[in-house]
Amino acid sequence: MSVETIAPETRAAIIAAVQDGFAGQVDFLSEFTAIRSRRHCEGEALDFMARALHARGWEVDDWTVETQNLSDEPGFVDCAGEVPSVRSVVGTLEGAGEGRSLILQGHVDVVPEGPDAMWQVPPYAPHVRDGWMYGRGAGDMKAGKVAALFAVEALRRAGYVPKGRLHYQSVVEEESSGLGALATLARGYRADCAFIPEPTGLGLVRAQVGAIWFRLKVRGRPAHVAYAGTGASAITAAMHLMGALQEMEAAWNAEAAAHPWYKGVAHPLTFNAGWIEGGDWASSLPAWCDVECRMGVLPGDDVAARKARIEAVVAEAAARHPFLCDTPPEIEWHGFQADGFVLEGAEAPEAALAVAHEAATGQVGPEDQIWTALTDTRFYGLYHGIPALCYGPTAESIHGFDERVDLGSVQRCTEVIALFIAEWCGLRAV
Amino acid sequence: MSVETIAPETRAAIIAAVQDGFAGQVDFLSEFTAIRSRRHCEGEALDFMARALHARGWEVDDWTVETQNLSDEPGFVDCAGEVPSVRSVVGTLEGAGEGRSLILQGHVDVVPEGPDAMWQVPPYAPHVRDGWMYGRGAGDMKAGKVAALFAVEALRRAGYVPKGRLHYQSVVEEESSGLGALATLARGYRADCAFIPEPTGLGLVRAQVGAIWFRLKVRGRPAHVAYAGTGASAITAAMHLMGALQEMEAAWNAEAAAHPWYKGVAHPLTFNAGWIEGGDWASSLPAWCDVECRMGVLPGDDVAARKARIEAVVAEAAARHPFLCDTPPEIEWHGFQADGFVLEGAEAPEAALAVAHEAATGQVGPEDQIWTALTDTRFYGLYHGIPALCYGPTAESIHGFDERVDLGSVQRCTEVIALFIAEWCGLRAV
Repeated sequence: MSVETIAPETRAAIIAAVQDGFAGQVDFLSEFTAIRSRRHCEGEALDFMARALHARGWEVDDWTVETQNLSDEPGFVDCAGEVPSVRSVVGTLEGAGEGRSLILQGHVDVVPEGPDAMWQVPPYAPHVRDGWMYGRGAGDMKAGKVAALFAVEALRRAGYVPKGRLHYQSVVEEESSGLGALATLARGYRADCAFIPEPTGLGLVRAQVGAIWFRLKVRGRPAHVAYAGTGASAITAAMHLMGALQEMEAAWNAEAAAHPWYKGVAHPLTFNAGWIEGGDWASSLPAWCDVECRMGVLPGDDVAARKARIEAVVAEAAARHPFLCDTPPEIEWHGFQADGFVLEGAEAPEAALAVAHEAATGQVGPEDQIWTALTDTRFYGLYHGIPALCYGPTAESIHGFDERVDLGSVQRCTEVIALFIAEWCGLRAV
Repeated sequence: MSVETIAPETRAAIIAAVQDGFAGQVDFLSEFTAIRSRRHCEGEALDFMARALHARGWEVDDWTVETQNLSDEPGFVDCAGEVPSVRSVVGTLEGAGEGRSLILQGHVDVVPEGPDAMWQVPPYAPHVRDGWMYGRGAGDMKAGKVAALFAVEALRRAGYVPKGRLHYQSVVEEESSGLGALATLARGYRADCAFIPEPTGLGLVRAQVGAIWFRLKVRGRPAHVAYAGTGASAITAAMHLMGALQEMEAAWNAEAAAHPWYKGVAHPLTFNAGWIEGGDWASSLPAWCDVECRMGVLPGDDVAARKARIEAVVAEAAARHPFLCDTPPEIEWHGFQADGFVLEGAEAPEAALAVAHEAATGQVGPEDQIWTALTDTRFYGLYHGIPALCYGPTAESIHGFDERVDLGSVQRCTEVIALFIAEWCGLRAV
């Protein structure tokens, strides 16, 4: 498939239109970033997006599906029942006809911000300083998401509508399971390409890891610390399990040295104990401790087999422990059971992206990235054969304090997306 | 000082009076145990005790002192400012004259109950089964506290009033700092003996450990787990510190093998990480982790020197750690900084207790106990030269789930306390 390269003056007009709209785009991004759209609390962000689509003339599909009704979809996870339903908002522009269709997808969920005191600025009072916008979610991935919407606006402002159909999709659960992306595919949305503007620093994600989430629930019989037997503390028992999982992490990383995509990456697979809570009193031997964990897997790894290995590591460590041997921990699979993914067979949209990237940035590119994180692209590419590009602005400290996005890169990214739509979907002057 | 042993028929009348009042005592204990008097929430329990004292004709002193105004008292701790004030309720019966005075002290605070699901019965819906009352605080130490009040009632019912002055003291903070006992001493309450009916299984606490509480606050700069450098997780950093403190625990216990009172006790000093909280998301590298810790000390140990050793252990462990070496943890001393204590020079009240114990139980005793926990006795014995006896009923699973107290032992204990008052304070028939 050849790329229909648009005329240089059209490109210049599109880039100028992005520039003209950029102050308004930053205001919109700031308003969107101010919404604390954490897991299970994404409603206001979805409302915001639905209103924005209505106001811009998109046809809006705003629906909620019971999670259990998604269970036949490839990539489904039940999150230990903790996500009873999934709401999504999809805007559609039917297009002027005869062009390739495109899904512009982005998630509205953000990860917890942690203690406000550890931020230099409040996490939900977005703030621009030295060309960066600060705020939880500004980088991951509200800036990219807003860029995609304003890219379409810029095309209109420049006097064009895309020929191919566009779906602008706002999803949840990207940070925890992918059930949002899965819900849109279950609804029947398909296109010739999917584009997800996660913060890639204007690079293209070539390969990404998968991830497995699990919660260790250590339980026992507590006592006054005066009667503490050795090894009966649920907190120290949890430490013992975490030590065994760190050994597993080292072994899996050693195996990764043979992987075609990850052999050059130092420590591609991370075990992370990201959340721990146990006990409630300094002088009571703690009888319970929960640890929420994440472990990476490589593209090509069988997730079910990796889960079995995690179970075996935990069971073996418990068997060696004086207290856990009688009271083994429960494992709850409460989120990601996600495959890794490598972008392949996407030459046509990649060529269109290369044209757009060079036109906007003046650089040949984009550069390939081998990611140690994951995105929703796997649902499109791995399970539905839809080429799925992940490309977006430059962010720092995502999932950390003082998360921020470089507004210069946001403007470039908006130009690239607009030009990509032009190349991929085609344009008709209005 | 010789013991004024009372007549056998008087004893029999007192024991009968305890029996007569016991059903009402169990009801009263049940009502008292139903109050969830956790740290910072002891008001309702103190109100309950003040009402009970008023109704029984005690003179009641119910006061609150700013904690900072206690700072000159021996044994003071500031709890990192987390206890701004201390309320106490003391009832006084002036006595018929010419007898030895007595403080009957007990704490109303209870430790957290943990998840309700781990109890067979709800922790604040006291329940009697097979002669045991179940409920948080039933054993530690509401049953003993109520026994002391009903012991005085039994004397009255038998037709006697004590010759010596009685102070019935309800205090807070026994489980965390001892500031309640300290507040009563600062108020000026003194007596010839203090008696604290903690659950000792009708034994006498001869020696008790001290304890030091401290909170480790590990802080760092977090990141998406994709960018996790080795050792940057606050949770794994906290695990590293806990490992170093467990090594310290082993060393201190090895030293304890030379202690005159504790050389025969296996593992007298317990390090306990009783409460941990860190991070908030499986896929975010945790940037903070707090651990509340308790470490025991022996009678004769210098608490300030032991605190310095804890600080050194934490500092050395931090210096060895790739992340903590630049960001050492904070240590907050948020509770106990308590000396150990050995009961010595209390021959007179011990003789009175032996008479009472034998009269009520038919056994020679009570047996000495070497405790690996602590009580408020240290304030009376160590800092004010008041002989302080700790003797009370039989409880199980204190600080654990399904905490319970043996009601048979509660009745025996009530008899012993009534007889002890008779022996110690003397009686006058009314």
